[in-house]
Amino acid sequence: MSHGHLAEPAVIKIGILTVSDRASQGAYADEGGPAIEAYLNEVLTVPWQADCRIVPDDLDEIATTIKALAHEGCCLVVTTGGTGPAPRDVTPEATEQVCTKLLPGFGELMRQVSLQYVPTAILSRQTAGVCGRALVVNLPGRPKSIRECLDAIFPAIPYCIDLIHTDTQQPPRLETDPNRVQAFRPKGA
Amino acid sequence: MSHGHLAEPAVIKIGILTVSDRASQGAYADEGGPAIEAYLNEVLTVPWQADCRIVPDDLDEIATTIKALAHEGCCLVVTTGGTGPAPRDVTPEATEQVCTKLLPGFGELMRQVSLQYVPTAILSRQTAGVCGRALVVNLPGRPKSIRECLDAIFPAIPYCIDLIHTDTQQPPRLETDPNRVQAFRPKGA
Amino acid sequence: MSHGHLAEPAVIKIGILTVSDRASQGAYADEGGPAIEAYLNEVLTVPWQADCRIVPDDLDEIATTIKALAHEGCCLVVTTGGTGPAPRDVTPEATEQVCTKLLPGFGELMRQVSLQYVPTAILSRQTAGVCGRALVVNLPGRPKSIRECLDAIFPAIPYCIDLIHTDTQQPPRLETDPNRVQAFRPKGA
Repeated sequence: MSHGHLAEPAVIKIGILTVSDRASQGAYADEGGPAIEAYLNEVLTVPWQADCRIVPDDLDEIATTIKALAHEGCCLVVTTGGTGPAPRDVTPEATEQVCTKLLPGFGELMRQVSLQYVPTAILSRQTAGVCGRALVVNLPGRPKSIRECLDAIFPAIPYCIDLIHTDTQQPPRLETDPNRVQAFRPKGA
Repeated sequence: MSHGHLAEPAVIKIGILTVSDRASQGAYADEGGPAIEAYLNEVLTVPWQADCRIVPDDLDEIATTIKALAHEGCCLVVTTGGTGPAPRDVTPEATEQVCTKLLPGFGELMRQVSLQYVPTAILSRQTAGVCGRALVVNLPGRPKSIRECLDAIFPAIPYCIDLIHTDTQQPPRLETDPNRVQAFRPKGA
Repeated sequence: MSHGHLAEPAVIKIGILTVSDRASQGAYADEGGPAIEAYLNEVLTVPWQADCRIVPDDLDEIATTIKALAHEGCCLVVTTGGTGPAPRDVTPEATEQVCTKLLPGFGELMRQVSLQYVPTAILSRQTAGVCGRALVVNLPGRPKSIRECLDAIFPAIPYCIDLIHTDTQQPPRLETDPNRVQAFRPKGA
């Protein structure tokens, strides 16, 4: 519970959700989750905690887990996997189901960036949105694509989290290594 | 009521809707609405009337006001404010609720243009659509961003309004100063 | 019915759906459908069958016909017409109604490409999605724009159809003339 100006800001928690039938069964090692964690360790200069989970490509399990991570205080929930057009790919649908606001600009920019590498970037259905007080962002499954997408969108993420927390008493404030990612906040923010 | 070929085209009405808790309470001066009106005076070469309104960031009030402006004969309703990811930002949701058709290309282009200036452009959730016989377009809140967005999308607006009024007897026909905005209509339109 | 490894892959069927009040009444000749068929004959190097239909701009008829084409085994259903903001334009709505997954990257890329030619490209509401085991793609009405859009998106279509058919026993495999369209499949696919 908050006690006004003496209180410390809460520790920053970030949910990393791997969506994969095979990884959830242990049939193969999850590569997406660790790639996201390594990236965040590289760019964030504030203390943070990862909450890493793995679920199968099941709409209800994905939706429930995103909501749980948001409810347990993650300010950011990043998913990897399940964004293509294959029958089992339902991560965007689960994300849309639990988000009260959608942020189409994230998906547009990620597809545009990936399009510089492969024409099949348009098959990615990645989206982003706000669930409770968490920003939820879908990323692709492959570590190389994950980094390309994060490099493109991360400059906007700290300020997005500020805005989602305009009515929060001790808002989480993400800071990045400017040599790695130049986070942008308008003057005065 | 229309009386065939002798009738004059109806005067062109444009709704300008400022969405802001603070501006609606008079706590600070609305800058977005006047910036839009100044822009339209600058580019339009046909007589037109502005119907300017200010509402708080409340989904029902925004939705009701857009519908009222469309119903009262505005061929274009431009909103400013309320398109970010903050809890009170609900202008895109209100717009989607009252529009029978959505035009995702407007938001895509505005975000792409704003991205040339700030990486946080992807946080804007601006959309556009058709409500009754009105084109509804969400713009950002800051006058500088409003102009950047209008410069990008305005060349397509007069023809869009023509198309929305293909079954209207005396359709409003927007004309622009070609030195300022080059409105595009396909040959024969 | 499949008989294991001896079975031949099923013949590739592609639905071409012209959406137009006037063309469906015979009031003018359909140009969009034949332009799509000519394009596919030019780029595909595998045997294929066209199933060409013409319907008016009626949401239910469009939706029913897309579903019928998908149900009758088309792996790809391409529509032309009805994607603008005019009152009768409802092709995107019909597409969204019958698709279980939407692929926003197709519409984004087509608008971006068309924007190089005309500023009114943002008025196009084209989308794409998956209906049953068919990829559904909305194209514009004019033959020139159809070709521009297909050139942009076709490199991603064969692999998209592979992914939609990951659980199909004899998946349709589209191959293209690399001098015309360089279809992209990740290594191993």
